[in-house]
Amino acid sequence: MNDAMLASRTAQTSPVSNSPSASIAFDSGHACTDLLPDLSSAGEIALTKYRAETLQYSGRAGVMDLREYVASYMNEDGARLAPEDIMIVNGAKQGLDLICRLLVEPGDSIIVTAPTYFTGIALFRNFKINFIEVGQDENGIDTDEMEEKLTSLRRNDRKLPKFVYNVPDFHNPTGITMSRQRREALLAVARRHGLFVVEDSPYKKIRFRGSEDASLKAIDDQNTVFGVGTFSKLVAPGLRVGWVATSRSNISRMMQLKSDGGTCPLTQRMIVEFCRSGALTTHIKKVRETYAVKCRRMADALRREMPAASFVEPDGGYYIWLTLPSHVDGDAFASRANESGVVVLPGSLFFAKPARDNPSSGGERLNTARLAFSHASLREIDEGVAKLAAVLRSFDS
Amino acid sequence: MNDAMLASRTAQTSPVSNSPSASIAFDSGHACTDLLPDLSSAGEIALTKYRAETLQYSGRAGVMDLREYVASYMNEDGARLAPEDIMIVNGAKQGLDLICRLLVEPGDSIIVTAPTYFTGIALFRNFKINFIEVGQDENGIDTDEMEEKLTSLRRNDRKLPKFVYNVPDFHNPTGITMSRQRREALLAVARRHGLFVVEDSPYKKIRFRGSEDASLKAIDDQNTVFGVGTFSKLVAPGLRVGWVATSRSNISRMMQLKSDGGTCPLTQRMIVEFCRSGALTTHIKKVRETYAVKCRRMADALRREMPAASFVEPDGGYYIWLTLPSHVDGDAFASRANESGVVVLPGSLFFAKPARDNPSSGGERLNTARLAFSHASLREIDEGVAKLAAVLRSFDS
Repeated sequence: MNDAMLASRTAQTSPVSNSPSASIAFDSGHACTDLLPDLSSAGEIALTKYRAETLQYSGRAGVMDLREYVASYMNEDGARLAPEDIMIVNGAKQGLDLICRLLVEPGDSIIVTAPTYFTGIALFRNFKINFIEVGQDENGIDTDEMEEKLTSLRRNDRKLPKFVYNVPDFHNPTGITMSRQRREALLAVARRHGLFVVEDSPYKKIRFRGSEDASLKAIDDQNTVFGVGTFSKLVAPGLRVGWVATSRSNISRMMQLKSDGGTCPLTQRMIVEFCRSGALTTHIKKVRETYAVKCRRMADALRREMPAASFVEPDGGYYIWLTLPSHVDGDAFASRANESGVVVLPGSLFFAKPARDNPSSGGERLNTARLAFSHASLREIDEGVAKLAAVLRSFDS
Repeated sequence: MNDAMLASRTAQTSPVSNSPSASIAFDSGHACTDLLPDLSSAGEIALTKYRAETLQYSGRAGVMDLREYVASYMNEDGARLAPEDIMIVNGAKQGLDLICRLLVEPGDSIIVTAPTYFTGIALFRNFKINFIEVGQDENGIDTDEMEEKLTSLRRNDRKLPKFVYNVPDFHNPTGITMSRQRREALLAVARRHGLFVVEDSPYKKIRFRGSEDASLKAIDDQNTVFGVGTFSKLVAPGLRVGWVATSRSNISRMMQLKSDGGTCPLTQRMIVEFCRSGALTTHIKKVRETYAVKCRRMADALRREMPAASFVEPDGGYYIWLTLPSHVDGDAFASRANESGVVVLPGSLFFAKPARDNPSSGGERLNTARLAFSHASLREIDEGVAKLAAVLRSFDS
């Protein structure tokens, strides 16, 4: 998939708008429509009682009540954050953008996992960033490989990367969650070489089983970590409210760089009202249950219909990372799937360094695909996987 | 006023939050609280009927119904724009940010008026832009001076600026509105030298008397102009919805650069519902009448209380640009005013090139102040101007 195709895909209004009509959307991180909450009473309160706040310009760091809520939300995990350590932004992506503006000069490098979040790649490319890729195992980013690469850069007197970007919980696209030990190792390596860690964790609460690990930010007592969070997956993507947890001096500088007139106070207030009413707790439970069922349904269908493809069933998140038989090219698979009415994203999209330019870097770039189970209905999941199985068979004929 | 003071001021939550309690706010472009409209029925519709649109991810170019509305709104002026020529952004400031990302490399220059919109200066500085200042007369930016400066750059084989940034209607801070003839001259000069024109026009509809001039975008048939608009002054600042009108190829590229997950579809839909219901027309009438009364009240008070200061009473907008007697330093005046409980912005803030670094560039940088009449009540206007008069007298003793 080339940049233009990616551009048109990521610019879509709806996950299926550019696909053949009645396409099944396994491509997007859109929320399940039935899980979009009823925010009308939060809206009513925000637009009447709080009108002078919600329709006026807001402060750049965000509505204080929401900063307080986010701090306490992150502190449930063991962090010790004050409201002043939280900056509200227009979704996690603006958080990443501001961190780049703060830390990066053109030509600087950063460390990303291979594969990594594909929208992040495009965002980082806008800053003319060079990528250093590091692999993962079942415990997350390979900190030994990271240490080796950093040591080698130092030995050769090369400029070190500015930060390591990672999705530690239900990693996008692989679904991997970092172990506690690996989280500590990541912080240790980053500190040893003077790197920041950018923790992007939109899926943390979307856990189907097992217990939550403390966030990187929670085990960081030296402001090594920028904790990037969002209400997109917790409440609704359309509200465009996220946050960055970092030092007050970083927030102060990012406020200068956030020259957008402030994040919408209306949606901030609606979230505060929704969360404080206790609705968030109930809602998260429903979200977990719904996505757990969808994930299991897709995993069962894949095992049944496509035994030649392999995957690790994730404990949470939105996605299944599918490894196809080695002779099946992921781009060709996604292209044929699209023609047959199922939209999936080829694995190649998720690598910061193009597979074709790095033939030595292994087959994973070439025979993988990401399947989102979040947006499709159970019927669509069954039907979609059956169609993908037929697509896969077409590579053998 | 130094950068840190400016930072703390522009980062405020409310116009008066960092000022002594009971301060009168003549500093900010905040809307009059009584003019914040009742959007609760628009909100209810957006959160129920349109829930699947408003709480989901949205397309990067914006909600199509709103793009259609904006195109027809701009076409009232004689423009011939299709919805596809409009990109929705998170307020006009994000529009300016995306235009910079599209057009500017570090070290490039742009043309601005002297004085110019002070938040724009900070935004442009983030892109490491160099400024070329051009003066204004009662018809707007001095296109002869602009032509001379561009010709001189060419003659010396210097790199030409990328665009000219201007607020043609009720200019911030001076209140000047460009004549039709001057608008045409600006387009002609820009085209002759291959510059774009960035037209930032938030105050166009806030006209107290006289008839509207066609926008620069309306008289541009060659896509020289980026038309930047906003609903902040028309409906409410807190909604954070603006737009950029430009060519489809520019929009396509800006969509790549707008890596923020799309502008909030909820506030977009609320605006469409509000405008289509006919409420916008009634609302604009009320906005005009209210600000006309406030402006006249401030002008009368200034004439009565401070005859030694001069100003041109504007025909619209939010601001009066006050020229103090030549021996009165604007920074000192603003500082003493703040101490006496009235917050005004010193003129020096509105110059891209610091006055102190350019002593030869004339006194205007040193003895001016911007007074906003938008947010203060009539009583506060009377009281505030009386206090400012006392402050001014303190410079004679």
